[in-house]
Amino acid sequence: MATNWPTNKQWVLRKRPEGDIGADNLELIEAPIRDLEDGEILIRNIYLSLDPTNRIWMSDQDQYLPPVEIGQVMRGGTIGVVEASRSARFNPGDLVNPGLGGWEAYTIGHEAMVQPVPSLPGVPLPAFMSVLGATGLTAYFGLLDIGKPQPGETVVVSAAAGAVGSIVGQIAKLKGCRVIGIAGGPDKCRWLVEELGFDGAIDYKNEDVGAGLDRLCPNGIDVNFENVGGKIMDAVVARMNLFGRMALCGMISTYNHEGLVPGPSDFAKVLMRRLLIKGFIVIDYLPRAGEAFAELAPWVMSGQIKWKAHVVEGLDNAADAVKRLFNGDHDGKLLVRISPEP
Amino acid sequence: MATNWPTNKQWVLRKRPEGDIGADNLELIEAPIRDLEDGEILIRNIYLSLDPTNRIWMSDQDQYLPPVEIGQVMRGGTIGVVEASRSARFNPGDLVNPGLGGWEAYTIGHEAMVQPVPSLPGVPLPAFMSVLGATGLTAYFGLLDIGKPQPGETVVVSAAAGAVGSIVGQIAKLKGCRVIGIAGGPDKCRWLVEELGFDGAIDYKNEDVGAGLDRLCPNGIDVNFENVGGKIMDAVVARMNLFGRMALCGMISTYNHEGLVPGPSDFAKVLMRRLLIKGFIVIDYLPRAGEAFAELAPWVMSGQIKWKAHVVEGLDNAADAVKRLFNGDHDGKLLVRISPEP
Repeated sequence: MATNWPTNKQWVLRKRPEGDIGADNLELIEAPIRDLEDGEILIRNIYLSLDPTNRIWMSDQDQYLPPVEIGQVMRGGTIGVVEASRSARFNPGDLVNPGLGGWEAYTIGHEAMVQPVPSLPGVPLPAFMSVLGATGLTAYFGLLDIGKPQPGETVVVSAAAGAVGSIVGQIAKLKGCRVIGIAGGPDKCRWLVEELGFDGAIDYKNEDVGAGLDRLCPNGIDVNFENVGGKIMDAVVARMNLFGRMALCGMISTYNHEGLVPGPSDFAKVLMRRLLIKGFIVIDYLPRAGEAFAELAPWVMSGQIKWKAHVVEGLDNAADAVKRLFNGDHDGKLLVRISPEP
Repeated sequence: MATNWPTNKQWVLRKRPEGDIGADNLELIEAPIRDLEDGEILIRNIYLSLDPTNRIWMSDQDQYLPPVEIGQVMRGGTIGVVEASRSARFNPGDLVNPGLGGWEAYTIGHEAMVQPVPSLPGVPLPAFMSVLGATGLTAYFGLLDIGKPQPGETVVVSAAAGAVGSIVGQIAKLKGCRVIGIAGGPDKCRWLVEELGFDGAIDYKNEDVGAGLDRLCPNGIDVNFENVGGKIMDAVVARMNLFGRMALCGMISTYNHEGLVPGPSDFAKVLMRRLLIKGFIVIDYLPRAGEAFAELAPWVMSGQIKWKAHVVEGLDNAADAVKRLFNGDHDGKLLVRISPEP
């Protein structure tokens, strides 16, 4: 059977990045697709999710999953369609999420890991790679489970125009908070305020973040959804209120740097203001995904939460496209279209 | 009436400390005692508590209470005996805690703030200034409410031979944990292991803390009760387990330094291991004091929790004695005996 199958294309990790991801870190190869065993499914990948955490997986730093090994296919979230199945649970044509997939045209998944992709009227497939996928879950649980925002409180989101940040801010608005975003460039800031209903936005490329926070958060900051780390995080921590909460989701400003990344420069604030800081990874919350989906899906279907995807065409362009996450050159959740939707 | 009263002696803040507390920061003055108004009580102070936080109150840094103003009586916890009362709630001879008292021989308290000191058979008065006072509450709530140690988990306490740390470790043992203390000098370390039942102790003056933690925490660290900050905290954070918790109680290694005190040097650990860090101050828990007292008092009366006080004689020596907190030259909860027990 496998003899009639197409050849797979796969991005393989060749060298761990030092600093920015470069041309020599990943290589696109061709490889045959093996036969399926019982319980396995051959998935033709349609969309690949590119995320800042890809950079972490490529490095050998201490992290929340084993790093991708040199020579292995690069890990990534995908959605695809079943092409062949030796599982009673899945049939050709089903849309599925293989669990943790890879940067490749075809993935062989096992029925124990593969999940069906739900279908909602009027909701396009990329939504399940963003607002109704891991991105939305990250925003939902980080904000609500750790940040615990109360109506009237002030929530500050960094990387606010990013896939996660933009959803965080909209959920916080739906929960009755004052929401301030930090983003790079006037277009992103305008989008946050005019399209997504943020109460204010700070363009860190053109304004001192501390001064912006002073201007837009006259009552201080109660919740910080932190995506960036470094000096932006420092400016937020300096203005946090008594019993403030920081959901530490990422530190993208630091991923391309070597060496240790320090905590808030004024750690005494954590003590004096009795702050809570909690790191989290969305996989911790996968058992509760249904809870998030039940609240997010109606918001998405009614348009109360807006989202957008930046789709790069072609698996061949994945290694180049991932760099956009670190220079801000993308507009919405970054996806690669590997093959056409059915 | 006041004309027959003794003259008060008071330590007044003259100059904010820069670096170590010096001779010119506090001045001992004499002052008359004014008449009582309705609801007020004249308290002759017996014990004054000296605590690392005194250094914070003397500075004008951002903090959890207003700093002591220049010219004001230095703030401090005291226990005393009622000498005169215009409150129906208190009679001469009652042992009381004036709320937040001062470094002075006599304090005028208001019945709304003054609390009676409980009496327990066989428990001496200094216990209510330590294990059954704010010190014990700090240990109890920081460890149990934030650290949430589970039986079999590993708890690491810094400044472990200090008033708070020694109680933290003993509570953690009573809760079924493996407990490792970090303290300065072989005598303190021996006391922790041989007298208090710690599973191990690291003498930071004579051993690399990281190496000691590697040796004594083969399964990593689940809970960190942090009193010290700086490099000792860094060594602990580097070895914390997934979903570990840090109760941030203090950063005594940094109080005498000028400038900002940074957070953990490897903040990515907080994200990757999904650590929780929570600053707290004992006053946050005062409404729940009864809860702690109900569990601590039987442990103290039965000898399951040991404690000791280092009593310095005479209010005149308070300003000199407080320095002992920062050089480690005290053996147990540091108190000043201002006047004899009744």
